[in-house]
Amino acid sequence: MPSGELAFLAWLRRTGGTAAGLEVPIGDDAAVWRLPSGEALVLAADAIAEGAHFRSGEDPRLVGRKALAVNLSDLAAMGAAPLCALATCALPRGFALPLAEALTEGLRGMGEEFGCPLVGGDTTTHDGGIVLSVSVVGTLPHGAAVLRSGARPGDLVFVSGALGGSIHGPHLRFVPRLRESAALMELGPPTAMMDVSDGLLLDLHRLADASGVGFRIEAERVPVHADALRHERDPLRSALGGGEDFELLFTLPKERAEAVLARWNLATPITEIGEILPDGRLLVQNGHSTVAAPLGFEHV
Amino acid sequence: MPSGELAFLAWLRRTGGTAAGLEVPIGDDAAVWRLPSGEALVLAADAIAEGAHFRSGEDPRLVGRKALAVNLSDLAAMGAAPLCALATCALPRGFALPLAEALTEGLRGMGEEFGCPLVGGDTTTHDGGIVLSVSVVGTLPHGAAVLRSGARPGDLVFVSGALGGSIHGPHLRFVPRLRESAALMELGPPTAMMDVSDGLLLDLHRLADASGVGFRIEAERVPVHADALRHERDPLRSALGGGEDFELLFTLPKERAEAVLARWNLATPITEIGEILPDGRLLVQNGHSTVAAPLGFEHV
Repeated sequence: MPSGELAFLAWLRRTGGTAAGLEVPIGDDAAVWRLPSGEALVLAADAIAEGAHFRSGEDPRLVGRKALAVNLSDLAAMGAAPLCALATCALPRGFALPLAEALTEGLRGMGEEFGCPLVGGDTTTHDGGIVLSVSVVGTLPHGAAVLRSGARPGDLVFVSGALGGSIHGPHLRFVPRLRESAALMELGPPTAMMDVSDGLLLDLHRLADASGVGFRIEAERVPVHADALRHERDPLRSALGGGEDFELLFTLPKERAEAVLARWNLATPITEIGEILPDGRLLVQNGHSTVAAPLGFEHV
Repeated sequence: MPSGELAFLAWLRRTGGTAAGLEVPIGDDAAVWRLPSGEALVLAADAIAEGAHFRSGEDPRLVGRKALAVNLSDLAAMGAAPLCALATCALPRGFALPLAEALTEGLRGMGEEFGCPLVGGDTTTHDGGIVLSVSVVGTLPHGAAVLRSGARPGDLVFVSGALGGSIHGPHLRFVPRLRESAALMELGPPTAMMDVSDGLLLDLHRLADASGVGFRIEAERVPVHADALRHERDPLRSALGGGEDFELLFTLPKERAEAVLARWNLATPITEIGEILPDGRLLVQNGHSTVAAPLGFEHV
């Protein structure tokens, strides 16, 4: 992420207001808004832009799919279930109708797969590439949202699936981890959770910052994606900081972790990769501990 | 609106799905989603793009303001009250931080004015101009949404405020008619309502299409905005089809209209401009009836 973008995000968080209904403000994977009826809405919005999140000429069905999937990944990271989605699309002037239709079909297909229908939106044309912005509304079937801030020293650190090599395909085809999130919520909610969008180590630094803790990660335990092994010169580096993995990164108290692993019956694996410490940020590799750099993804 | 965009919107509506919670689908000013608790959410999303909805170099505070205001206008058109908003912003690569901050301040200022806090969002950079996409979540304090489809022959047609000349300033500075909508809902809800975004006659055609009715509009009764009188060669034409007025267009049964007018105590006037007919679309000007063309706005 370019430094201007990071500075702007920091400003947004610093100056972000509070409001009566706002239970979780800007800064986590999604916001939580408590309705007068007591029901909680989980709200997230993400835009993907040509040249930044996908290449020109990429299959528009996959682009539409991704625009919703990144938002569903945010809901999963909160322990939420999706209700519905809204989308706006800025298209290049003189766009071909089949392009717009394919984007929407990709979006709707993903929505059907996860019970999140597209209920509204808007389209416009401009001098530029495709910018597809999606908002999702979700609920909390298990009562409470899982935040980034709940990790405690002694908790074990887990990731779902495998990481790295995303740029070679998975970033357009990944499956948002809603089922895995729902299973975790059933088995006993994580103490902290987020999705890995900008790189495992960078996102882990963010989780640790939000929780006020440190961590120790065992590099050899990090599950490396087949696409990283196949296409990357340094597959581990890609797994540690490639970004756009959209896997769940979460923490569980030691005493609960074993039971969760024993009862885990989904095809997607969950892997223990380290531990939350009171402070310090360590990466253990070949038996040597080094300070873990916030290795992360810069949008192309 | 370019024809490609219209064709795409038509396709969206034609192929738009239904879902258990979806009470009002794509095609009205906003969607209505019924929660299991019985509470209704009103959901809208609109994007504004540089070169299409505002010029390059325009005050970014006004641009941010407009991005939320067009969405609040959609909520007003449903008889809804805002809860909160989400925004995504695609910014030109290498943007200056003060630009992003000013956009956000404009957005937040508008949100504060109407009790609609910005609770989440995302920012990205791309090869193109500013694309600001906003989604709003609202509720229905008066129980039911006012749709475009409820107009009945004999109903009188009203507009709020004055129309035309929007391009000369009002399109960036307009006040979304949430207060006026709330007052109407109190006094006795309109049978049909929408906001005038693409031009009075074009939008009136849409309302008539949705309701399966005709109309007769008295051109001389249409309130013409001072900016149209000051800057336009043909102020009436601008009022009839200039677009981006963001005033309320609504219908009231004759027997209720007088009481609403008598009890109307807001500064924004409401003006009767014609009548709903069983069929036919007529514009009366200088005592002559002509078929009303769907005069409307094409994004620049």
